[in-house]
Amino acid sequence: MAKPKKQPRPKAVTPKGFRDYFGQEVTQRTEMLRAIADVYHRYGFDALESSAVETVEALGKFLPDVDRPNEGVFAWQEVDENDKGDWMALRYDLTAPLARVYAQHRNDLPTPYRRYAMGPVWRNEKPGPGRYRQFYQCDADTVGTASMAADAEICAMLADTLETVGIPRGDYLIRVNNRKVLTGVLHSVFGFESEDEREHLGAIYDTAEKRDAVLRTIDKFDKVGVDGVRELLTVGRKDSSGAFIEGVGLSSEQAEPVIAFLTSRGGSTKETLDNLRKAVGESPIGADGIKELEEIASLLHAQGYGADRIVIDPSVVRGLGYYTGPVYEAELTFEIFDEKGRKRQFGSVAGGGRYDDLVKRFTGQEVPATGISIGVDRLLAALREKGRISAQAEGPVVVTVMDRDRMADYQAMVAELRNAGIRAEVYLGNPKNFGNQLKYADKRNSPIAVIEGGDEKANGIVQIKDLILGAKIAESATLEEWKERPSQFEVPRGDLVAKVREILDSQG
Amino acid sequence: MAKPKKQPRPKAVTPKGFRDYFGQEVTQRTEMLRAIADVYHRYGFDALESSAVETVEALGKFLPDVDRPNEGVFAWQEVDENDKGDWMALRYDLTAPLARVYAQHRNDLPTPYRRYAMGPVWRNEKPGPGRYRQFYQCDADTVGTASMAADAEICAMLADTLETVGIPRGDYLIRVNNRKVLTGVLHSVFGFESEDEREHLGAIYDTAEKRDAVLRTIDKFDKVGVDGVRELLTVGRKDSSGAFIEGVGLSSEQAEPVIAFLTSRGGSTKETLDNLRKAVGESPIGADGIKELEEIASLLHAQGYGADRIVIDPSVVRGLGYYTGPVYEAELTFEIFDEKGRKRQFGSVAGGGRYDDLVKRFTGQEVPATGISIGVDRLLAALREKGRISAQAEGPVVVTVMDRDRMADYQAMVAELRNAGIRAEVYLGNPKNFGNQLKYADKRNSPIAVIEGGDEKANGIVQIKDLILGAKIAESATLEEWKERPSQFEVPRGDLVAKVREILDSQG
Repeated sequence: MAKPKKQPRPKAVTPKGFRDYFGQEVTQRTEMLRAIADVYHRYGFDALESSAVETVEALGKFLPDVDRPNEGVFAWQEVDENDKGDWMALRYDLTAPLARVYAQHRNDLPTPYRRYAMGPVWRNEKPGPGRYRQFYQCDADTVGTASMAADAEICAMLADTLETVGIPRGDYLIRVNNRKVLTGVLHSVFGFESEDEREHLGAIYDTAEKRDAVLRTIDKFDKVGVDGVRELLTVGRKDSSGAFIEGVGLSSEQAEPVIAFLTSRGGSTKETLDNLRKAVGESPIGADGIKELEEIASLLHAQGYGADRIVIDPSVVRGLGYYTGPVYEAELTFEIFDEKGRKRQFGSVAGGGRYDDLVKRFTGQEVPATGISIGVDRLLAALREKGRISAQAEGPVVVTVMDRDRMADYQAMVAELRNAGIRAEVYLGNPKNFGNQLKYADKRNSPIAVIEGGDEKANGIVQIKDLILGAKIAESATLEEWKERPSQFEVPRGDLVAKVREILDSQG
Repeated sequence: MAKPKKQPRPKAVTPKGFRDYFGQEVTQRTEMLRAIADVYHRYGFDALESSAVETVEALGKFLPDVDRPNEGVFAWQEVDENDKGDWMALRYDLTAPLARVYAQHRNDLPTPYRRYAMGPVWRNEKPGPGRYRQFYQCDADTVGTASMAADAEICAMLADTLETVGIPRGDYLIRVNNRKVLTGVLHSVFGFESEDEREHLGAIYDTAEKRDAVLRTIDKFDKVGVDGVRELLTVGRKDSSGAFIEGVGLSSEQAEPVIAFLTSRGGSTKETLDNLRKAVGESPIGADGIKELEEIASLLHAQGYGADRIVIDPSVVRGLGYYTGPVYEAELTFEIFDEKGRKRQFGSVAGGGRYDDLVKRFTGQEVPATGISIGVDRLLAALREKGRISAQAEGPVVVTVMDRDRMADYQAMVAELRNAGIRAEVYLGNPKNFGNQLKYADKRNSPIAVIEGGDEKANGIVQIKDLILGAKIAESATLEEWKERPSQFEVPRGDLVAKVREILDSQG
């Protein structure tokens, strides 16, 4: 028979921008998400796991007449008889699916609908270092109420969540701002045309271009500070490289409300709100925004959340463009060293806010909604920084195989250990070379190896090796210590579980 | 300004064959998977979460010269400059990714590598009732060892898992068979050509067609029984509709080993194995298979797993074609009523076995592996059948809003309740109509509603309504009972948490 032609071997790699997660990377995330879900559940939020695949139509953002609508998402066309099937795509976040779910099931869902969702999302973007095309999101949203109590609740829940997963009070701060206040500030700068047009934000300015330039400048506040913003809003500014950045061309007077807005955070909520009132001047929508912030502050106060946890802070500008009302950002305030060895604050781990046209696309009805999204990977990284979760895997006790024919004996040992709740396994590789077995135990981060050769069996004993202590002694002990602190113990076979437990406890 | 042209509204639906999971559907599955992961972890298995997206090349199964390789999977082509990007696809199971991961990371992974994986998989198949294109799998595999101890361990772990999630001993049975024994039986029927050709199973028979017909007939054993199989193997058979099914054309003598194989389960493991020896006759590979079963039985015996939990049962035929050695199937033996009201056994919830060319596609090296896959949805359904998980959602305590301006008071109440670990929420809808608030509480399956109107506030009290008892009384109580067992309580505001706790406890 002729040999079949050899096919080239497939490459064993993930697609570009994708990765695998091993052991603790998986279990620690699972545990963290579980702790978060517990808090959300206590707040009355219900779990939702929407389908990972949506129609491109429902996801939105994409033009129906584009041939391959996969800009930004992973999309494909359903194959049907006429090759005219629907386009489907992997969800790129958890908010767009929530809109679809709420529109689809609104008659069966309670209103307001509090829901949380956790899971992977996919982005068809150029991958880069540390930048993946599949990652986890963890969201909580309340759909169907315009009440500021919903926003206050989300902020309180976020504070509880951070403390529950292991960020101590004092190491985080939730900062709250309001998109309407910014709109009010822009009114102060440019004026606004009529009450009626307050409904059509974004179309009311003669000077739309200038307004956008102002918004872009506000985004630079964190980087260039007050003076930088003032220069950029007016005559322009030399950047650190000496290049000249042209200014927006406002007068100094026009720039003032923006500066007042960015620097309005005072020593108390009352002071901050008073400063904001000056910044928005006569703008009714600005006044609305301030009233909303006031309401959130008062509700949080009633629940015992002080300014050490949640604070009104107009310098939160990230995402202001997307949201329509209050916006929140959770920052971790403890310091870490960045990759260049410089100290900096850990920074943002969650953000959110109020948005209003969630469901309107589907039903025509405006449905108010507000929500938060936690950066799962960043929060995990923060917990590792704080030593809240261990970087070292908890390996199993490894029962070595000294005599291949007595596998049943070794299996009985691990069964006893497992029944006592101890993580344990028999070495299942080729047992000929004992060194390989200890190398395996090392690779598994095993705390303990158990050895029962023929002599031990005959004498009814087992050898138990403390691998953690053994490694420590090997590293640093003097000869005296080495003699005094044996890392291997000989115990009667019947004492196996007790001795293993004792050593595990001593290892902490 | 001209009105922008109206786009048609998108339809709020999942793509065909996809669905959403709400509330308890999500949390109960999460809890079950967590309990399973605990057992797997105790057995030394490590978590792995591979990327949901694989290259089509790594997934295999697909021809490289097919233009759109999305038969059976959801696949799309990466867009690059020349429109010649790689094809990617959603994983269709958790085994193919394991092969890729092991081949890619084998130098960093321990050998043997015990891993478990849980998550959604996607199939591009015609959807049908109860048949979805995205569903959960939960797998555990040991890669890199040919030892039967690995197979025995998987069976023991499966038994522990079922008991841990809530299937009591006696309500399940793990049945073990071996593909090699079946091969030995086929040798008995058809003869085999040479020792050398034992290596090339599947290409050794003159009568390949007949062999396949025999395998198909064996698959029908569950349906047609011994006599049916005997007829089908020889002269043919009339089915229940009266239609004649042609026989395979074996002689009665040739059919005997197959019948002996299918009916070989005896009163003890020893008896079963003796029967199997007769069925495989002189076949060396058959003898191998029996030796493997013997070894598994002895290892399980040493760990205390009796035939009431794990049994050698040659009538397990499902999946025999795919596997290369031992195969396992977990069946739930308690009875349920099917959709037609007939009693039947619940049936299979997990299956697996040994397969050997997992990694060979990538590396050229044969890597033995064995594993199990749990049917997540079926096991969840079984737990619901057994009343192990409740069908009824645990709703939050609802604090109603009697006075919109006192939202801070109501928020303070839920904060107290939540701090005491009680699931609670304020009604955030329009509070004008009190009836709507109680309807909402009903939709939320709330156990308790809390009411504090102006009078209550003035008198320092709250009303606490037991909604579960209230519903029961409304359904069935006599007037006397109704008077004796009030479902609404007036307590001092300071006793809110204590009284709510008391009522929740009384509700069980």
